[in-house]
Amino acid sequence: MHQHDIKSLSLAESGRERIDWAGRDMPVLKLIGERFIRQQTFKGIRIAACLHVTTETANLALALKAGGAEVSLCASNPLSTQDDVAAALVEYGLPTNAINGADDATYYRHINNSLDIKPHLTVDDGADLVTTLHTSRTGLLGEVIGGTEETTTGVIRLRSLAAEGKLCYPVIAVNDALTKHLFDNRYGTGQSTIDGITRATNLLWAGKTVVIAGYGWCGRGIALRARGLGSQVIILETEPLRALEAIMDGHRVMPVEEAAGLGDIFITVTGNKHVLRPEHFKKMKDGAIMANSGHFNVEIDIPGLEKMAAGVKRIRRLIDEYSLEDGKKLYILGEGRLINLAAAEGHPASVMDMSFANQALSLEHLVKCRGLTPGVYPVPENIDKEVARLKLKALKVGIDTLTPQQSKYLQSWQEGT
Amino acid sequence: MHQHDIKSLSLAESGRERIDWAGRDMPVLKLIGERFIRQQTFKGIRIAACLHVTTETANLALALKAGGAEVSLCASNPLSTQDDVAAALVEYGLPTNAINGADDATYYRHINNSLDIKPHLTVDDGADLVTTLHTSRTGLLGEVIGGTEETTTGVIRLRSLAAEGKLCYPVIAVNDALTKHLFDNRYGTGQSTIDGITRATNLLWAGKTVVIAGYGWCGRGIALRARGLGSQVIILETEPLRALEAIMDGHRVMPVEEAAGLGDIFITVTGNKHVLRPEHFKKMKDGAIMANSGHFNVEIDIPGLEKMAAGVKRIRRLIDEYSLEDGKKLYILGEGRLINLAAAEGHPASVMDMSFANQALSLEHLVKCRGLTPGVYPVPENIDKEVARLKLKALKVGIDTLTPQQSKYLQSWQEGT
Amino acid sequence: MHQHDIKSLSLAESGRERIDWAGRDMPVLKLIGERFIRQQTFKGIRIAACLHVTTETANLALALKAGGAEVSLCASNPLSTQDDVAAALVEYGLPTNAINGADDATYYRHINNSLDIKPHLTVDDGADLVTTLHTSRTGLLGEVIGGTEETTTGVIRLRSLAAEGKLCYPVIAVNDALTKHLFDNRYGTGQSTIDGITRATNLLWAGKTVVIAGYGWCGRGIALRARGLGSQVIILETEPLRALEAIMDGHRVMPVEEAAGLGDIFITVTGNKHVLRPEHFKKMKDGAIMANSGHFNVEIDIPGLEKMAAGVKRIRRLIDEYSLEDGKKLYILGEGRLINLAAAEGHPASVMDMSFANQALSLEHLVKCRGLTPGVYPVPENIDKEVARLKLKALKVGIDTLTPQQSKYLQSWQEGT
Amino acid sequence: MHQHDIKSLSLAESGRERIDWAGRDMPVLKLIGERFIRQQTFKGIRIAACLHVTTETANLALALKAGGAEVSLCASNPLSTQDDVAAALVEYGLPTNAINGADDATYYRHINNSLDIKPHLTVDDGADLVTTLHTSRTGLLGEVIGGTEETTTGVIRLRSLAAEGKLCYPVIAVNDALTKHLFDNRYGTGQSTIDGITRATNLLWAGKTVVIAGYGWCGRGIALRARGLGSQVIILETEPLRALEAIMDGHRVMPVEEAAGLGDIFITVTGNKHVLRPEHFKKMKDGAIMANSGHFNVEIDIPGLEKMAAGVKRIRRLIDEYSLEDGKKLYILGEGRLINLAAAEGHPASVMDMSFANQALSLEHLVKCRGLTPGVYPVPENIDKEVARLKLKALKVGIDTLTPQQSKYLQSWQEGT
Repeated sequence: MHQHDIKSLSLAESGRERIDWAGRDMPVLKLIGERFIRQQTFKGIRIAACLHVTTETANLALALKAGGAEVSLCASNPLSTQDDVAAALVEYGLPTNAINGADDATYYRHINNSLDIKPHLTVDDGADLVTTLHTSRTGLLGEVIGGTEETTTGVIRLRSLAAEGKLCYPVIAVNDALTKHLFDNRYGTGQSTIDGITRATNLLWAGKTVVIAGYGWCGRGIALRARGLGSQVIILETEPLRALEAIMDGHRVMPVEEAAGLGDIFITVTGNKHVLRPEHFKKMKDGAIMANSGHFNVEIDIPGLEKMAAGVKRIRRLIDEYSLEDGKKLYILGEGRLINLAAAEGHPASVMDMSFANQALSLEHLVKCRGLTPGVYPVPENIDKEVARLKLKALKVGIDTLTPQQSKYLQSWQEGT
Repeated sequence: MHQHDIKSLSLAESGRERIDWAGRDMPVLKLIGERFIRQQTFKGIRIAACLHVTTETANLALALKAGGAEVSLCASNPLSTQDDVAAALVEYGLPTNAINGADDATYYRHINNSLDIKPHLTVDDGADLVTTLHTSRTGLLGEVIGGTEETTTGVIRLRSLAAEGKLCYPVIAVNDALTKHLFDNRYGTGQSTIDGITRATNLLWAGKTVVIAGYGWCGRGIALRARGLGSQVIILETEPLRALEAIMDGHRVMPVEEAAGLGDIFITVTGNKHVLRPEHFKKMKDGAIMANSGHFNVEIDIPGLEKMAAGVKRIRRLIDEYSLEDGKKLYILGEGRLINLAAAEGHPASVMDMSFANQALSLEHLVKCRGLTPGVYPVPENIDKEVARLKLKALKVGIDTLTPQQSKYLQSWQEGT
Repeated sequence: MHQHDIKSLSLAESGRERIDWAGRDMPVLKLIGERFIRQQTFKGIRIAACLHVTTETANLALALKAGGAEVSLCASNPLSTQDDVAAALVEYGLPTNAINGADDATYYRHINNSLDIKPHLTVDDGADLVTTLHTSRTGLLGEVIGGTEETTTGVIRLRSLAAEGKLCYPVIAVNDALTKHLFDNRYGTGQSTIDGITRATNLLWAGKTVVIAGYGWCGRGIALRARGLGSQVIILETEPLRALEAIMDGHRVMPVEEAAGLGDIFITVTGNKHVLRPEHFKKMKDGAIMANSGHFNVEIDIPGLEKMAAGVKRIRRLIDEYSLEDGKKLYILGEGRLINLAAAEGHPASVMDMSFANQALSLEHLVKCRGLTPGVYPVPENIDKEVARLKLKALKVGIDTLTPQQSKYLQSWQEGT
Repeated sequence: MHQHDIKSLSLAESGRERIDWAGRDMPVLKLIGERFIRQQTFKGIRIAACLHVTTETANLALALKAGGAEVSLCASNPLSTQDDVAAALVEYGLPTNAINGADDATYYRHINNSLDIKPHLTVDDGADLVTTLHTSRTGLLGEVIGGTEETTTGVIRLRSLAAEGKLCYPVIAVNDALTKHLFDNRYGTGQSTIDGITRATNLLWAGKTVVIAGYGWCGRGIALRARGLGSQVIILETEPLRALEAIMDGHRVMPVEEAAGLGDIFITVTGNKHVLRPEHFKKMKDGAIMANSGHFNVEIDIPGLEKMAAGVKRIRRLIDEYSLEDGKKLYILGEGRLINLAAAEGHPASVMDMSFANQALSLEHLVKCRGLTPGVYPVPENIDKEVARLKLKALKVGIDTLTPQQSKYLQSWQEGT
């Protein structure tokens, strides 16, 4: 087995139990995985995967392995690793490099360890592995058939890379599948972000003013859930159209300068940098809480806050208290890292089921259609539809089918008033 | 002035008042209209418009006229015409052919009257005017520069026409503008459909089971509002993805056979034909109510219901009672025509403001870019963005702008964990 | 037949149809009414009823009449009378005094006409009939057995009357029945207030800021529905507890001075006087709309607004435009009278079913228990429970019953951890 | 110091931090506590408190101690104790008897240890301490001035005890304060029950069918939050009125026999026994999850389930899997104990702030008004109002005050239409 680096093998039992529990809520991936076993879809294929090391990821990695692949896994975020899951995977013979709380050096060492497998396929979440491959490990590029990318942030980076003509192999943007982002980003991030903040703080949402930066699918999911728990929501946006949608959805919209003084809780989910900055910290109320649910921990300018602060103190697990000169106290949760993974268990399994079904089928597609030109590709539409169909089947929900007369009607232009 | 045909000029005063009242909620169209007056954008241009003759349409037509155009207007639906508005328009010197409750012959005569203007531009809602032009009035096609189409149903018909190579000029699918369908279809149809049914029946929504056929933007708008009034919602769909979204949004999804026996109220909004059919009527509960909010009155198979019925009776304005052999009574509202226009005043002005701003700017675009190949075109992106920007301005809502550092970040791929 | 005074008998047909339609949604009253017919519960009893003359009231009045009573009906509000219903009632042989838009003199003349029946029982809604009886018609008090009062405002007035020792007979506060106010005030007023404003204005609720004065059962019903339609809600209250509930329900709460400048729509439902006053009108935005849903038209200080205004103009049915000196325009709907009755059809039948079932059973109770001391009485608990039980039965909803073991458990104190 | 029994003093630091964090959200208790310090309200008073040993309880106990009282604390539920909080309290010199997971014998030994303080006042949550005092420790009753009871279940037991003439001292039913049950039961239990189940299972709520037994304040809070997270809700009730409210609130209502086969998740919160029983387990779907949020772990008949099961296995922390003969698997969370305390941190501090402010002021009231007859008393109305007033002040929310003219209007009966 390839090299692994985890917290402790002794945690494996809890990891196994939790992986099984999550697996119960991943019927689509299970169905696909059973086919992979029969067909040995990935026989002879080596896969380097850089993902949040969670129970759902474990189910994906094990399905690929059972389908014939050799898989090595590393963490896509230093704070999201579930150490017991990492231990269980190693026990299952799947080399894993991931330790919760790893520093930056360790984080990149883990990525490199994972790359040592000399991958035919890469699976990435945020594009750190692909970036490493394209900068310091270019010697490995020759064998790569293709890759997949899980998240918005990663897709943005890959498109920049491709725009500069530097992307060396085809990558499927799994994030863009409808059965991925409409569900994972909206219902998954919506619930799990709120969940993470609740676990970190045990605050009551009812009656709070929650400021959400970004009204993409993630942002609107969080807004929906915050309101569902009794909060008032204020949305920050840079796109007029999304701002209008937020207004029509019953939220307040205003510039961050104005919202800064009104929020009890601030949540960033823009995919951008320094959305909350020193000029906003100054206007915040005493006791304001900030959390991030975007991929990277740059959305809140924490270094900027540190410079302003007279003192910083960890006052509870995952809560840092910044005391400003004027006595005001501001709180940062989970060091500004993805709060749903830092403080909770990440997206629930039943939503990751669809995202990872897209991953699995996209990887199969890359193997079957070798020789694609380098570039960022959408998930093939038939994969997207297949995932939706299988999910409904698993939920035992029936839907209607068009009658022949109806299909014909939809294709005609003669029939009017 | 060209020929007009309306109910009675004596209704003009009420029409004027209501047109003005609607105009108060259409600030974007007003802003654009003021520019048209200054620039006489449509000087020398003749426009035939087939739209629901409502107060909002009146504001659009008057804005085009003030911008230099010669405009003739006819109804796009026999039951949606507001006779007082038609009267006011005639008084304002805008030839209008529209009478509420017109029979089919009159309906098509009105379209033909309107076409007599020999249009350079056509504005359509459902594609009946365009179809007439392409079948019985082909002699007029020579002068046509282009057209716009307002609704989903019309766009489907135009695409069929184009696919057969028979569409003779460029048409902009206004419906596809984000500032149109995300707002008009969702918030407009959502509210106004519920409003129409309430006015027709005065029923209490709380505690009712509402079955909605179709979970497109219209259907999800209606579902949102029905729930907002305390109803339980059941969704019918043929697309797995939309069915999944409906489930995740907290609705029940099932085949129409199963839902037929559960609903208190059925609303069709699929753009398709015979969604509710005799086999479903048989399973419905005594007292079930059916209404349609799709463009054409074919979604409920009313002729099929008539055949089954022992008797039919109009028991209240807009309510027909069908007594079946077994004594069960079913109710059809507004003869199955768009209930929001048949029983209420159609979409509120503030949402039509955006749709018609897209209309106005698309018509300007056609005039400025003469010579486009025949085909169905999207609304140019800059028009869509401009409408959103103007609407926010009118609402006095400020949003954020990207800092230079943020714009740069979004374009880079190097910055990772 | 006693004297009647209505708009026109020619409207009777529409009235009959609408009364029947409403009757379909009043199964509990129907069940009770059938028993009254069999038992001739009110044989020899004269009833003077002062209620909103709507289709639901007609069903109540006709049930009492069919149960043996002689009933005379007058309007409890000059703007809520449905003239076609009044005509139908007269045709059915039930003397009715009610004309929509009656002036104050006519209004009180109608009450006096109704009292000429020399009632054994009074049915009131707002206590105007009872007040008239206790001031100018005291000669009739001798024969009165008792009465019922429908609304919060009326109950407040009767308690004041009783507190001064001046109430001369027992009155049952129907409003206090749980099956009345929890449903009628919350779900009925909630929906119908919004409905009335929509019909008067055709405005889009999504994205609007709605200021609601009063967070009693009516106020929270309206807040629920406004939010359900996509509005932001601001609550005005004088009671700390209710203010806290509003906050926890996700609404903003602030003093009226502050809210005045933020609202697009203001709705009063406090049961109090001059809730919106000149000092608030001054702060309102141009175009702000005001409506009242409390019993009397005193909640908005309209005379105060008139004094401030440079001009007043009716610009659309039920909309008065007040132009202030600085050019700002404010709008009052339905002259500040109960907007759900002035602009819509009042509460839906299915909710009035429960309120009027309480009325019917309370009147029966008064007849059976003659000789109660003067005073304000609650609806007997068994009546309240019976109404709930019958309603569930009509809805065909089953619920659980306690097992003997469970009943015993609830009565014990020994069984702990 | 009196005897204490806790898990480990080494946990004290984490307990201190978390107690402080909760204290930040308890401004009302803090304000009251500061007055107690100044006035030494409880000087010479001994208090035995049996409460959930959480961070919020710690703040209450410390406030009483700082106000002069000698306090001993024990757990009111074996699974809800936060061991780090217990440790911190002991370090603060407050004798505590509470260990998470204690067996029944230890649980009652802790109660007895706590009673050894010979209390003047008792504080109870579920009435186990009061019951012990009235059965095996009657010798201590002589010194008791009075007590308070926190929860519905306890109040029911105390009323039974009083009804049998056996309650020996006055007890204030804190649960009945409006500022307690309208907030703690509704918003507190609502959020924290969902939170507990999420932490135990990491399931996705969107799209799930959640069956809630009981539609009291707790039940409707849970229903509100489940829907807010995208679930469909089915309500079980035995009271027709509550069942009707649930229907009007948009939920489905049906007998438990019918719901048993539909639910993905079952939550009991009735205060009753064996609400879910073997006959229901038989009908449940494979994979159904059951949790309890009522006070005692008797709402789900777990012994009955054990008898049916072929095997039982703990498959994840707080999740027990019961395999039935037919292969179906059912899951019980937290052994059927209050899931919000077993799996999460209990109610958020800001809602307990009001409940415990009522506790603190009620205890003060008992001391000041010694000599009340034994019996169950409501919280004095002025205490309830004071708590609401202080909470609004802490939230910096202003409300309106009646003008003199308005106060007068509310007291008059003359002013009508």
